Amino acid sequence: MALIVHKYGGTSMGSTERIKSVAKRVAKWARAGHQMVVVPSAMSGETNRLLGLAKELSLAKPGDTHSRELDALAATGEQASSALLAIALQAEGMPSVSYAGWQVAIKTNSAYTKARIESIDDKKVRADLNAGKVVIITGFQGVDDAGHITTLGRGGSDTSAVAIAAALKAHECLIYTDVDGVYTTDPRVVPEARRLQTVSFEEMLEMASMGSKVLQIRSVEFAGKYKVPLRVLSSFTDWDIDINEEAKSGTLISFEEDEKMEQAVVSGIAFNRDEAKISVLGVPDTPGIAYQILGTIADANIEVDVIIQNISKEGKTDFSFTVPRADYAKAMDLLKAKVLPALNATEVTGDAKICKVSIVGIGMRSHVGIASKMFRVLAEDGINIQMISTSEIKTSVVIDEKYMELAVRALHKAFDLDQPTA
Amino acid sequence: MALIVHKYGGTSMGSTERIKSVAKRVAKWARAGHQMVVVPSAMSGETNRLLGLAKELSLAKPGDTHSRELDALAATGEQASSALLAIALQAEGMPSVSYAGWQVAIKTNSAYTKARIESIDDKKVRADLNAGKVVIITGFQGVDDAGHITTLGRGGSDTSAVAIAAALKAHECLIYTDVDGVYTTDPRVVPEARRLQTVSFEEMLEMASMGSKVLQIRSVEFAGKYKVPLRVLSSFTDWDIDINEEAKSGTLISFEEDEKMEQAVVSGIAFNRDEAKISVLGVPDTPGIAYQILGTIADANIEVDVIIQNISKEGKTDFSFTVPRADYAKAMDLLKAKVLPALNATEVTGDAKICKVSIVGIGMRSHVGIASKMFRVLAEDGINIQMISTSEIKTSVVIDEKYMELAVRALHKAFDLDQPTA
Repeated sequence: MALIVHKYGGTSMGSTERIKSVAKRVAKWARAGHQMVVVPSAMSGETNRLLGLAKELSLAKPGDTHSRELDALAATGEQASSALLAIALQAEGMPSVSYAGWQVAIKTNSAYTKARIESIDDKKVRADLNAGKVVIITGFQGVDDAGHITTLGRGGSDTSAVAIAAALKAHECLIYTDVDGVYTTDPRVVPEARRLQTVSFEEMLEMASMGSKVLQIRSVEFAGKYKVPLRVLSSFTDWDIDINEEAKSGTLISFEEDEKMEQAVVSGIAFNRDEAKISVLGVPDTPGIAYQILGTIADANIEVDVIIQNISKEGKTDFSFTVPRADYAKAMDLLKAKVLPALNATEVTGDAKICKVSIVGIGMRSHVGIASKMFRVLAEDGINIQMISTSEIKTSVVIDEKYMELAVRALHKAFDLDQPTA
Repeated sequence: MALIVHKYGGTSMGSTERIKSVAKRVAKWARAGHQMVVVPSAMSGETNRLLGLAKELSLAKPGDTHSRELDALAATGEQASSALLAIALQAEGMPSVSYAGWQVAIKTNSAYTKARIESIDDKKVRADLNAGKVVIITGFQGVDDAGHITTLGRGGSDTSAVAIAAALKAHECLIYTDVDGVYTTDPRVVPEARRLQTVSFEEMLEMASMGSKVLQIRSVEFAGKYKVPLRVLSSFTDWDIDINEEAKSGTLISFEEDEKMEQAVVSGIAFNRDEAKISVLGVPDTPGIAYQILGTIADANIEVDVIIQNISKEGKTDFSFTVPRADYAKAMDLLKAKVLPALNATEVTGDAKICKVSIVGIGMRSHVGIASKMFRVLAEDGINIQMISTSEIKTSVVIDEKYMELAVRALHKAFDLDQPTA
């Protein structure tokens, strides 16, 4: 018998039929002798419906005065889905109780729409578990010290589940979603992509930040901090699949390197095309330049990802970085209006039609030549590299968007990630 | 400057356009210098949608184990509409804050789906009012001592509004709805029906219990107990109607008899056709008979309304009563199976095609001959009276359903309730 946390995403809770199937699955685990805590998302579409209504009423943006009310509004989605799941479990003959974040309580700071969990009181939950009940706790939300409802931001239910698992010292936190695990890359781009049985915490962080939408990045950080064993698996398998088989399915996010079963140097290929590239050319190479350029961008609430500063020639240097594509025009305008004249730079250029492709692998730490192999593979397909950025377990390149699929497929094959052919 | 409570029903909150109009109306009152507390219902259809989902998951009925979860589920409807109204007010430039019942806190007992309010803490609300904010409080719900969410049952938002008005000692509680006041009878049946400017608390109670769906009966009881001045008025007038005109519109439910402006003996004609009549004939006229018959009915959770026991003849009597029409078949089966043989009664007969028509008026207390005038009016139209029941301020008759409209119109005219013709 172990304490297990299940988290179900919006698609898994998307209809009463789906909720019934979740209830049967949870009841199966409870009947196998486990103490079960379940963290559901809102039914799919519900959060968007609610926030859509708010948008019809107000043109203000999150961060403005009405953020407190947006949170009170959005939190109803999980409260409803949690109560529905409790009802479905009771209809299955399984005792259950649902709690909103404030009832547990899950205490957060007061940063509405993007609150951070500060503490979780496990008293009520343990009492209910010991009384043989399945405990359902709303994802995505908490309560601040003054008793205001807060939410953790999009995808926050993953973070809730991991935080609850950490507070309860759960044996494992199972994240049920509409994919059956973490893949070496997106199977829609590379049909030969392979599911990873285990992936290291660090690799998962790099994958998540590259837009593999399997897990919210904050939940992975949280799991890493508290060493919560995390498993990503599908809620679309039959609910009555053998429980031992189910417990081993999906992808385990591991914190113990020596447990890693797959010793590939590169674990996966991540990519995204949500960014744009900007270069400020002919900048005087003096202290404080990076701050003057990036400070202007940061003040406009634009996130910067890859940053490259080339070596200086004749006291001038070129400075390049990427920003979210949605902020590209705004960033270009800002730079042309403010930074270009202030720095007496030569020119601001940009390109929105780029993509970023990364190879990720914890094995890269101890292997040399991985990056150069990547560059060679791309060169063989005639793909020009525009920017390069490296970390201990990742090498990213920025290339022309039109080469994205070609690059991903070539790298996937070159690093032996394709499924073994029969 | 006065403290005013507004309550808006589901239709008044039925769309973002309607919510904007509510916000403009409330802002108008606040700008006129009033301290405003607003109690909204869920958006129309929302409570039914949520409970419909629960029904798809469980065949259990309210009162069963899952009642706690039904309340957690249903309470989300008002939490969402309250947050939306707060957002709409802020978009109007009016500071506002929304609270769920537990945040205030509105303490109730633990009778899920039909909880009773026990206390209301006015601290937070007063602080916000003094800070110049409009305070929005979810109707329909509260929290019990153990921190579980409770709801007050259908129409409970009226009760919430009145209870909040009582706790805050509000100057007046305005119930905005889709009708513009209380009428002498249903205008759909009698086009000449007249809106009452004032109606006494006792009359309103009789009207409400007769199915005039303007106000929930518990809210009227509550208002009577705490002497909360209550006004029913329409939310479908233009929001920018002159505030002094608006403050005098609708119908005021008055607690001071001598203030009553209209001295008519009969204030209104109430009616319903939701009941059925049952008679147990040839019952031995011995003590305990009423209990044996009605106890069986009560044990099956069937409500009984009018009860008549005829005088005894040769040691036998006839016993008649009305039940909700939806329970008619069940009640007949029970009586035939259990009561008829046990009492050795002659026969159980029934009729579902009946209706109840009542004349209601506080003036009846001090006038004789009102009931006999009612019977004469009905006789003149050839309407046979099947049962009669009287109280201090009401006389009800049970008649064949097909005569209902005819009876209501004839009585409305005979008791001078028709609008004065031009």
